[in-house]
Order: sequence, then C-alpha cells, then structure tokens
Amino acid sequence: MRIARFSIDGNVAFGVVEGTALPSGETPGPPGSTGGGLVLDIIKGHPFAEFERSGQKIPLDKVRLLPPVLPNKVVAIGRNYAEHAAELGNSVPDIPVTFFKPSTSVVGPGDPIAYPAFSDEVHHEAELAVVIGRMCREVPRERVGEVILGYTCANDVTARDVQQRENQWARAKGFDTSCPLGPWVETELDPGDLGIMCTVNGEQRQLGRTSDMVRPIEDLIVHITEAMTLLPGDVVLTGTPAGVGPLNVGDEVAVTIEGIGTLTNKVIKRG
Amino acid sequence: MRIARFSIDGNVAFGVVEGTALPSGETPGPPGSTGGGLVLDIIKGHPFAEFERSGQKIPLDKVRLLPPVLPNKVVAIGRNYAEHAAELGNSVPDIPVTFFKPSTSVVGPGDPIAYPAFSDEVHHEAELAVVIGRMCREVPRERVGEVILGYTCANDVTARDVQQRENQWARAKGFDTSCPLGPWVETELDPGDLGIMCTVNGEQRQLGRTSDMVRPIEDLIVHITEAMTLLPGDVVLTGTPAGVGPLNVGDEVAVTIEGIGTLTNKVIKRG
Repeated sequence: MRIARFSIDGNVAFGVVEGTALPSGETPGPPGSTGGGLVLDIIKGHPFAEFERSGQKIPLDKVRLLPPVLPNKVVAIGRNYAEHAAELGNSVPDIPVTFFKPSTSVVGPGDPIAYPAFSDEVHHEAELAVVIGRMCREVPRERVGEVILGYTCANDVTARDVQQRENQWARAKGFDTSCPLGPWVETELDPGDLGIMCTVNGEQRQLGRTSDMVRPIEDLIVHITEAMTLLPGDVVLTGTPAGVGPLNVGDEVAVTIEGIGTLTNKVIKRG
Repeated sequence: MRIARFSIDGNVAFGVVEGTALPSGETPGPPGSTGGGLVLDIIKGHPFAEFERSGQKIPLDKVRLLPPVLPNKVVAIGRNYAEHAAELGNSVPDIPVTFFKPSTSVVGPGDPIAYPAFSDEVHHEAELAVVIGRMCREVPRERVGEVILGYTCANDVTARDVQQRENQWARAKGFDTSCPLGPWVETELDPGDLGIMCTVNGEQRQLGRTSDMVRPIEDLIVHITEAMTLLPGDVVLTGTPAGVGPLNVGDEVAVTIEGIGTLTNKVIKRG
C-alpha cells in the first residue's frame, strides 16, 4: 500500500494511492504532481495507528503532495555502498558512519531545494529511506521488520565543499531543504534488491541496487537503536550508490526507486 | 525572570520561579527538587508568546521539574574553549565544530543519565545552553539577542570511546539521556562572563568562565543560522571548559552556572 500525505484547500490529510504509478524512467510530471491516473483514497485515522479508507477519492493531480512523514529526526548512514565510498576517496568504514539531518531540512516532492549561500558545491545523493512505524530502542535484528512502516525515496543533499572542510556534518548535510522525501510511503515492499537511480534534468547520474549496501537495513537499525530511541515517523537514510555529483540552480533532480516511485525537486537560489 | 516547566498531579505547566536560588556551591537537594524556599507562579499562556503570571503559587519542592524546553533539535558546538580542546589533544578549529543532539537525548533536572551499553567511557561536559525564542535563519550578528529567550545549564554527556572511534558523533553524543537540560530558563542574564562548574559527587571537576569561549554566542548563532532555521525551543550548546572526565554508575553530576542555578542528574545502569 502507498500512503501519501497531502494538502488540498488548506487541509492536510493522508490518503492511500490507487492506480498504477509511472513506470521507472518515464518523465515525471511538474513539481508537486506525479503524473496522471492516480487517485487518493482519504484515510480516516492516522497511518501510524489503526485507520481505514474513507472511500472519498481525489485525483492525485488535484492535491499538493507533502513530505509523506514529519520526522522528529532523520538518522543517516554514510559510505554504505563501496563504489560510492571509493569515488570520494574513502574506504568502507568498520563502523557505520552515523549522522543526523534535522526536521528543518525536510521538504516534500516538488518542493524546491534552495542552494545555500555558504556552499559552491552542492551534490545529490539518492537514497532509500526507511520510515519508522513504532517507537523502539535496542531492536533485535530479527524484529527490525516490526518497527518499519515502509519505504520512500530520499535525496541526502550535501554541500560537499562544506563537508570536506568541517569536522562534523551538521551544516553540510543539515541545511534547510537538504532532505527531500517522497513521493509516498510504500508499506509492502522487500527492500533487499531494488534499483535506485538519480537523474538530473533527465540525464542519469546515479544507478545502483540496494543489494549493494555494505550493511543491510537490519544492521543499521540495530546499530542506531543500540544508542537511541526511534519515534514513529523518524526516518533512516541508508546511504547512496556511486555517481554523486553537482547540482546547479535551475536543475531538476529526480530520485527513482523501483517499487516506490519518483521524488522530483528543482534547485533554486536561496531567497 | 526564571521560567520552569514542571508536572504536578499529571498536569504539565510553566511557572515563574520566585525567591532566592541556592548559592552556587551549596549542596543541591534530591533529584527533581532544587532546595527550599522557592515557589512557582503558574503561567497563563506560553513562554514563547504573550503570557502573564496567574498568581497561583506552588512550592517548587512539591513539583517535578521537567526539561525547561522541548527542543526540536539541539545544535551543539565542539572545542569552543581552548583548554578543553587541548586536553583532548585537539587544536582550536578554524570553523566551529557543529553537531546535533536529537530531541530523544533530552532529559530534565533530576532525571537519570542511563549509562549506555555500547560505551565504557562516558564523560560529563558542562555547558551554557542558549534557548531560542523565535523562528529564525540567517540572523545578522547585531540581531542575535532578539532570537534568544534565555539560558539554562546543559550537560553534553559524551561516550568518549565511541566518539574517538566513530567518524560522526550521532551515537557518541546522541544516545538517550545524553542531554540533561535545566533547571529553568533564565531570561535576564548577560552570558558574556559567567562562572561554569561541574561537580561529580560534590567534587569539583570542571571550572571555567564563559568569557573564555573561543567564539562568543553571537558568532555561533550566525554560523548555525547561515545553514539552517532554528525554531522556538531549539537549544544551542556552546562548548565545555576544561576538566571533562568519566562518569560512573551511581555518580551524581551537577552543572552550576552563575546566575542560572544547578542541574543535577544521577548516573544509572541502562535498564
């Protein structure tokens, strides 16, 4: 099931996406839309608890999609694809590189990525995002599936020059609009071997498979929750495959993950 | 004015602290209390907006003090006192070291610090905490005062061994209970030259003055908000003076800042 969060006429709601998504590779629609034919069945209740479909349906192209969740925190993992670690001159770490992106960095599908004034080299990083469904800590490996609501696409937008000169990455990876999420949460999906692609202005930049992760999702959730509680709606980013590169003002960047859909954002000058 | 957040009989409220706080150095009371003589005048409204005192007063020792704010994020600065940077073998950085502690790490005065299972060397770090009062970004240096609600005490509890072996500090400084804040927010205070002390079981460990910060608060807020929006209730930690050292299960650690008060927490085994 695909659960979207959206606004229409000033109201915010969740809905179940019905219909067939665009096939991977087809040109995405304008920002805020994801193409024709899809409808939203508005949810009564909340996706993190019991809910049912209302039967009240709205065409998806009549709404504005929002970030599918409002994470309290985003916990991200660096260097989790060997080829990507190598392209930046890094080895695969013995211990997963773990950092935060704050809630203020999150934007939704179609929202602009505002190029920050303190960087001259902003990169895209397409990533599979895990959406946490239950409050949890010290999760045993075999129970990780129970705490996951589903999966969405993320772009771990990074000020690469700032990352290289600052010891900790709070600014380089935590600036406003540096965490696009969407277009919706897919709740029925085996994340073990999915194609993950990033295009800029329609041109392919990153292409990988989640099966190439150095550490699988189970290991990452165990590692994170050994230290801290995850809350419903928190998001775990699982690392990016090779092919990261610069974004420029005016670019349209799209992250597509097999079985989920496409997250598209345009880069603008920070106003 | 001192604004505390507290619970009594299952209700949560803010109150203005009246009376004279304990002189610095006097033994703090039991966890959750801060000694005799103080009363809380319950606030009508919210401290981040217009509010007035209700005139309804409760002795402070009848309530449980809570973290004085519920930050969406805590942005912390490392190596901002030269002697502390040196004691860990680090130089003073050209650019402030900037990292996050998540909301799930925040606890209040009297709450336990739970010693995490993944570390064998947990350290105290006494710090002046700045509480943000207004949503802000790209704050000009001369307007930093306008975005600050006040100041409180913080303990940037750190798993030093984990910090030394992990590239990014999300686990080392972001584990549950690693960010005690309190006992209240002091809104009328010049933070430029305050004594800051940490004791463990009554024995002095850290002693410094905020005038020894490498970069003053104005510079830190400019640096952070160049990249990201701060929200009302967000907290900025300003670095720790020299004298950091280990905490053990059973220890009582107290951070005292001149003009604010004392934040006391006991270290327990994580349950």
